[in-house]
Amino acid sequence: MKKTGAGSSIQGRSSNRFTKAKIKNKIAFLWVCLLLNTAAVCAQTTTDISHEDALKAVLAAKEKAEDSKVLVNIAVVDAGANLKAFIRMDDSYLGSIDVAIKKAKTSRYFDINTGDLGKLTQPGGIIYNIELTNDGLVTFPGGVPIKNKEGKIIGAIGVSGGTIEQDHDIATVGANAILE
Amino acid sequence: MKKTGAGSSIQGRSSNRFTKAKIKNKIAFLWVCLLLNTAAVCAQTTTDISHEDALKAVLAAKEKAEDSKVLVNIAVVDAGANLKAFIRMDDSYLGSIDVAIKKAKTSRYFDINTGDLGKLTQPGGIIYNIELTNDGLVTFPGGVPIKNKEGKIIGAIGVSGGTIEQDHDIATVGANAILE
Amino acid sequence: MKKTGAGSSIQGRSSNRFTKAKIKNKIAFLWVCLLLNTAAVCAQTTTDISHEDALKAVLAAKEKAEDSKVLVNIAVVDAGANLKAFIRMDDSYLGSIDVAIKKAKTSRYFDINTGDLGKLTQPGGIIYNIELTNDGLVTFPGGVPIKNKEGKIIGAIGVSGGTIEQDHDIATVGANAILE
Amino acid sequence: MKKTGAGSSIQGRSSNRFTKAKIKNKIAFLWVCLLLNTAAVCAQTTTDISHEDALKAVLAAKEKAEDSKVLVNIAVVDAGANLKAFIRMDDSYLGSIDVAIKKAKTSRYFDINTGDLGKLTQPGGIIYNIELTNDGLVTFPGGVPIKNKEGKIIGAIGVSGGTIEQDHDIATVGANAILE
Repeated sequence: MKKTGAGSSIQGRSSNRFTKAKIKNKIAFLWVCLLLNTAAVCAQTTTDISHEDALKAVLAAKEKAEDSKVLVNIAVVDAGANLKAFIRMDDSYLGSIDVAIKKAKTSRYFDINTGDLGKLTQPGGIIYNIELTNDGLVTFPGGVPIKNKEGKIIGAIGVSGGTIEQDHDIATVGANAILE
Repeated sequence: MKKTGAGSSIQGRSSNRFTKAKIKNKIAFLWVCLLLNTAAVCAQTTTDISHEDALKAVLAAKEKAEDSKVLVNIAVVDAGANLKAFIRMDDSYLGSIDVAIKKAKTSRYFDINTGDLGKLTQPGGIIYNIELTNDGLVTFPGGVPIKNKEGKIIGAIGVSGGTIEQDHDIATVGANAILE
Repeated sequence: MKKTGAGSSIQGRSSNRFTKAKIKNKIAFLWVCLLLNTAAVCAQTTTDISHEDALKAVLAAKEKAEDSKVLVNIAVVDAGANLKAFIRMDDSYLGSIDVAIKKAKTSRYFDINTGDLGKLTQPGGIIYNIELTNDGLVTFPGGVPIKNKEGKIIGAIGVSGGTIEQDHDIATVGANAILE
Repeated sequence: MKKTGAGSSIQGRSSNRFTKAKIKNKIAFLWVCLLLNTAAVCAQTTTDISHEDALKAVLAAKEKAEDSKVLVNIAVVDAGANLKAFIRMDDSYLGSIDVAIKKAKTSRYFDINTGDLGKLTQPGGIIYNIELTNDGLVTFPGGVPIKNKEGKIIGAIGVSGGTIEQDHDIATVGANAILE
């Protein structure tokens, strides 16, 4: 508070300097909190697909399949390549259950579209017979990574039952659905 | 059609008898069709769960789990014990993916609540160690057959991640959902 | 029943109309039953092979093999790709037990003659190495879908032990036997 | 042949010796043939169940099951414990496919009724947990060795789907059928 007269002038200037210092300390303190907080949050997070998004991806893919009049199996795995969601459309191939799941896993294992992996695995290819690893990989199209809005891979989707082009398109629709 | 006079009376009665005969034949014919149709369709059919119902069962079970504040994995298999639908709730046990799927399969393999099978498999039990068959059975609660409105088993649901009582309750809610 | 006199005439015509109405209702009711019955039965059904037909297919295939002087293993799976019937002819290859069963499963998994699947799985093929899925697929001839009289796939038969052409022919005879 | 007179006497004795020698040679030759023949037969035989008998056993067991109004899976293995014949009755447990096959194999592996093996495998038993060997053994009743008329074990039959008592009885009927 300001007092009248010369004495109050001197006290006022001292008071101002003290207040500014307090404010600067407070700001510095807040920055430290912010940095520590982010570090604390980052230290404990994994970008992973939620079950809501996994279901969203599966249902979007299923809708695309129905529009294309194709019967497919659709699997989503999470960031750890563990099964997160799955649906088998009526009358789709029984054999495609395992193929769809393996496509999703393969895609997440190598963060790649399964068809792109397959370009390298043919006889003469640089990773020939890699399909024999990991309890069986599938290296033809239909498996696609799922990314979040920051572009970070958080899982993958695998589709099987149509032609390989249809499988890839349906999987892509499913993967993109969570960005909407 | 009736004509005037006695002659029309006689023709009318004859016409009536003929019409009645035709109608009776038609009824008999329809009954035969009904029976044959039922027989023909039943001769080689197995009732199976649709993907709509499988999804319905999974989502109903998931809602029950959320109400109970339990995190679970939920799997549905069809009449042939093949995977039909699956969801893993965020932060539920990773190990429960396989347990849920095996509970559903076990339940369909033997048309039984998995916990009831388990009463027979303990040391001293009549089917001790049956868990070693069929690539691994799960014989504690959480697997429940799914029946249609006629009471015919068309698949099964398996839930894992809560207590065994919670798993069984959640599975039961899922199974019953398709009857609504 | 007719009564004598004018009053009975009127009652008779009324009685006739009532009876006709009843009969028409009955016919309509039966039609509804027929349609509902068909609908109800069809809503959740999968056509499946009976054990009588599975045995018939196996024995017909065995007879064909004997005529061709070939020693084979013959397996039939049902609509869910589960083993339904099997026979191993004396002195046929032991290794062909598993091959025959896998041919039947492969055929049912993808509703295809196994040899046709194999045209797509060679190096450079669009589904290269799919044999690594589903616990092992067999993609050379000898596996054939089994259809019912309506053309619906209800299972599959797999034959192994002769040349691939013989295996395919024997399997075909077995599949066709149930249509007789 | 004897001739008269002294000369004939000498010739007669020479002739006798020659004949005796011939006879001895013939007998020796026959012995050699017999031994060689036995050796030849022994070198190439294994007492093994024929596919005709395997089918006979399966069908007899199936008939017994139908009489008892029980739905079962029936498997027969040969002397090498390899699958020889199999049938799954309509609507019998899917899980019993594998149990029936494993019962037959277990029975042949140890030439024992599976239920008798199970008396030794309980906690505290002398061969506790033997079920974990051989890709899974089944040690409750339903598996029975198949013997030929000489009492030699030539295979085994496994039945699953009824109570353990029913399974054992049905299997026994199947095994005995080939002795008729």
